[in-house]
Amino acid sequence: MVSLGLVTPQQMHFSEPLPLKCGAVLADYQLTCETYGALNATRSNAVLVCHALNASHHVAGVDAQGQRGWWDNLVGPGKPLDTERFFVIGVNNPGSCFGSTGPMHVNAASGRVWGADFPVVTVEDWVDAQVRLVQRLGITQLAAVLGGSLGGMQALDWTLRHPEKLRHCIAVATAPNLSAQNIAFNEVARRAIVTDPDFHGGHFYEHGVVPKRGLRVARMIGHITYLAEDAMDAKFGRALRAAELAYSTQEIEFQIESYLRHQGDKFSEYFDANTYLLITRALDYFDPASAHGGDLARAFAAARTNRFLLVSFTTDWRFSPARSREIVKALVDNRIGVSYAEIAAPHGHDAFLLEDPRYHGVMRAYFERIAAEVQG
Amino acid sequence: MVSLGLVTPQQMHFSEPLPLKCGAVLADYQLTCETYGALNATRSNAVLVCHALNASHHVAGVDAQGQRGWWDNLVGPGKPLDTERFFVIGVNNPGSCFGSTGPMHVNAASGRVWGADFPVVTVEDWVDAQVRLVQRLGITQLAAVLGGSLGGMQALDWTLRHPEKLRHCIAVATAPNLSAQNIAFNEVARRAIVTDPDFHGGHFYEHGVVPKRGLRVARMIGHITYLAEDAMDAKFGRALRAAELAYSTQEIEFQIESYLRHQGDKFSEYFDANTYLLITRALDYFDPASAHGGDLARAFAAARTNRFLLVSFTTDWRFSPARSREIVKALVDNRIGVSYAEIAAPHGHDAFLLEDPRYHGVMRAYFERIAAEVQG
Repeated sequence: MVSLGLVTPQQMHFSEPLPLKCGAVLADYQLTCETYGALNATRSNAVLVCHALNASHHVAGVDAQGQRGWWDNLVGPGKPLDTERFFVIGVNNPGSCFGSTGPMHVNAASGRVWGADFPVVTVEDWVDAQVRLVQRLGITQLAAVLGGSLGGMQALDWTLRHPEKLRHCIAVATAPNLSAQNIAFNEVARRAIVTDPDFHGGHFYEHGVVPKRGLRVARMIGHITYLAEDAMDAKFGRALRAAELAYSTQEIEFQIESYLRHQGDKFSEYFDANTYLLITRALDYFDPASAHGGDLARAFAAARTNRFLLVSFTTDWRFSPARSREIVKALVDNRIGVSYAEIAAPHGHDAFLLEDPRYHGVMRAYFERIAAEVQG
Repeated sequence: MVSLGLVTPQQMHFSEPLPLKCGAVLADYQLTCETYGALNATRSNAVLVCHALNASHHVAGVDAQGQRGWWDNLVGPGKPLDTERFFVIGVNNPGSCFGSTGPMHVNAASGRVWGADFPVVTVEDWVDAQVRLVQRLGITQLAAVLGGSLGGMQALDWTLRHPEKLRHCIAVATAPNLSAQNIAFNEVARRAIVTDPDFHGGHFYEHGVVPKRGLRVARMIGHITYLAEDAMDAKFGRALRAAELAYSTQEIEFQIESYLRHQGDKFSEYFDANTYLLITRALDYFDPASAHGGDLARAFAAARTNRFLLVSFTTDWRFSPARSREIVKALVDNRIGVSYAEIAAPHGHDAFLLEDPRYHGVMRAYFERIAAEVQG
């Protein structure tokens, strides 16, 4: 397989105001995106890839900083989502911190950095912004929208509110809404950030500081929920960092502590605290069944013309297979075509980002089916 | 059932130095304890109750502050651990913050409050202190040592190092050691406390402050792990606090957030930050198999003369039934008498503190068996 090689992001400016679910309006905004492969003559081979919490438009290839895309093992020439056959679009969502309009940018109306005043964005708002981007690219109907975790929620929302604008929805390791426990973990992470004295009510930029302590703790909590307990035991177990115990409450004793601290430190260097708050809130709010008295099947009645692939992983305790099965059931209740794969993978929620032959085999087969449709 | 009514703690001073596993020595120390019921003529009916992370010597009855003991539903006249038949001892462990010598006390050697300089204590150190307390009370052999969670680890350690000093070990919702995930949750909680600027390297007492932000986050994380995901969904689900969403990243939207913040706030008002670090570390370190090449059965060979009751709860994902079964297997491998009950209870790890007819039925039956033995 050939790699995509160097990829370059594009900035797209949108001057038409974007009304948000919270009631606020983004007067104008920019979206950072990357595209791979070529749009065919009938403009029928485009696939939109939606990102999750801490990812971005940089899905595949290598950027100018030498960073490989977050789903580079899946997307590229000859890969399951084959850029020789598909035109692939990666876009950074508004409110994120990788180029699209977000809390670290200046609010033109006030002349001040948005910070905590950036309006609360939802999965639906992101999809609305993505719809405009796709339109700008001259695409009437996407071959597919694809996403994992929070990205999967965006893919699902496309089918609920814009079913005519896509053929297939591919939602991996996702859920129809967050459980109380999911919300609880998000809330602890947010409290760690908000109560960090360097947060300054979300206007830390003006103080020249970053709430790194809170971000570190938030990321450590996140990491625990991304990994399966058995995989953690297999990888770290009770292995010590040194030959002897130090008998200290603050020094690192166990390898797992070292790993988590390292992940927390790295994250606090590059991720924006306000973005963390916004994106975890978007996760909390997503709940398409709520407008239908909690009946998910009624919510999916809108998606009758779409076809679905759902994938879950057996050891994912964040968005367990049972959550994907709820979606499958709602689709089946509507007699909507759905393929479902439950992959026996040891890596927990993180599995959706990893290369697994069965998982990638399922993805490849499904995209081959789409390719046959859109080229036929 | 009659309640124990008002109970009064006693202070016991020990002037013989206590050597600790970390290499340090507690030159002298005091233990706070409570006892309920009466010691019989042959001094054979004493039961020691060991506490877990945030509990104390105050096991049953009502103290001068009107607080009911943490295991009052289990211990009292006519209750499963019947104080009309047994002499029950509750003791606060050194390093804790409820009266026994701990980090908020003055280190006589330096004239300064111990703070973060309090030596790291282990399950084994606590048991050594308990052994001396029991000796002081004139008891040669306990009828039983009983504990849940971290308290269960202490009960197990009694059988490993002092098997002749007890007849029965009753260990509820416990584990033979922490998994990597267990350690990970402890580590995040510790980092939240240690990186709170009000922690001041563990000497916050001198600054007249308390690292409440860190304690709150630590407690919120703990609470998530004590509750079963399904029970959280049943109790809180996605219920909102107000009729309408506020669309805010910092305001409370969901009931589960309100609950967790309340738990965190309450805890930060009464619990000592250094104690939290010490006790989570004691949990991390406990690993009786480690001295036997990881072979738990070899560790329990020492406990041949003891009899065991192990209890676990189906929805406990912190110390799951599988962890109790590891202990049962090690005992069976040694042909040691063990009763094991796996209780189908919805409340997760917290179940060990709650009243459940099947659970309390098992406990009552086992204590009746012990009562028959020690009175026979």
